[in-house]
Amino acid sequence: MVLRLSHRAERDKRVTTHLGLVARAFGASKILITGQRDEHLINSIQRVVESWGGPFEVEFVSGLQSTVSDYKKSGYAVIHLTMYGLPAQKEFPKILKNSKNRKFLIIVGGEKVPFEVYQTSDYNVSIASQPHSEISALAICLDKLFEGKELEKKFSNARRELVPQACGKKILEKS
Amino acid sequence: MVLRLSHRAERDKRVTTHLGLVARAFGASKILITGQRDEHLINSIQRVVESWGGPFEVEFVSGLQSTVSDYKKSGYAVIHLTMYGLPAQKEFPKILKNSKNRKFLIIVGGEKVPFEVYQTSDYNVSIASQPHSEISALAICLDKLFEGKELEKKFSNARRELVPQACGKKILEKS
Repeated sequence: MVLRLSHRAERDKRVTTHLGLVARAFGASKILITGQRDEHLINSIQRVVESWGGPFEVEFVSGLQSTVSDYKKSGYAVIHLTMYGLPAQKEFPKILKNSKNRKFLIIVGGEKVPFEVYQTSDYNVSIASQPHSEISALAICLDKLFEGKELEKKFSNARRELVPQACGKKILEKS
Repeated sequence: MVLRLSHRAERDKRVTTHLGLVARAFGASKILITGQRDEHLINSIQRVVESWGGPFEVEFVSGLQSTVSDYKKSGYAVIHLTMYGLPAQKEFPKILKNSKNRKFLIIVGGEKVPFEVYQTSDYNVSIASQPHSEISALAICLDKLFEGKELEKKFSNARRELVPQACGKKILEKS
């Protein structure tokens, strides 16, 4: 489960769409989004799910703290991705060891993350302790949590499927 | 070395900036860019290098085929990241085995990648065989090529350095 904070419909449309697609492609079941409700974004992500398969959901939520707190109560470990956090390469082995049920809420910040997010999260984790992109941070986080197995994930009800090619493009159209 | 194709100054400004920052943070030495020359983009990336350290370069190039061909002649293995390519989890072990000098030119597509790119590349590689983001594809590619060691990379001449925190933000200002 991924929670993207403070979406801004105009400025963030591509970045949040990419976050949704990364969440889906790398094995998360859902992306929750706070900020400006954006039907165009929801449609973009849902169109990808219809074409390339699921299950994967996208939902706008209000009430950041109550959302996080509900997931914590349901047994999710909360991982906040922030460049200020502790190094991923040390934290992920601990997280995997401590969280036997492997239910994670991964928080991906936007502009101005409220300090409560740092306090409520079980882990504040940095990928590389350098500025880069919330998209790369999420991808690396999911790849480490799934230990590379997400790259083999099969999706259900896909209308289209890629047939890997050494040189060129091949898509299997199923409907 | 990363080569980003077909930058469009308005539409792609955030995505190409993120690609530059990912290239730097995950251990590449330079990003080459084709498409619309964009001083704002160059400045954004250079400001990050001035603050957070290098070495890392950004350069616009024309002549896609001659650029790729020059790198091939200098002994670089050319990896084209495309969702249509062969699975990363099978290709990267081969690439690492075959390329003892570990000099890679990683091509990240934009809109409409010319077919010559598929033909000239030594490897057409797909991360997850699903649509997601060129930013996540580049991050995963660099993480696999550097086998996670890039997360520990130290940068030179940084004015600012993060001090990892379990909860909160700490930046060491050096000048």
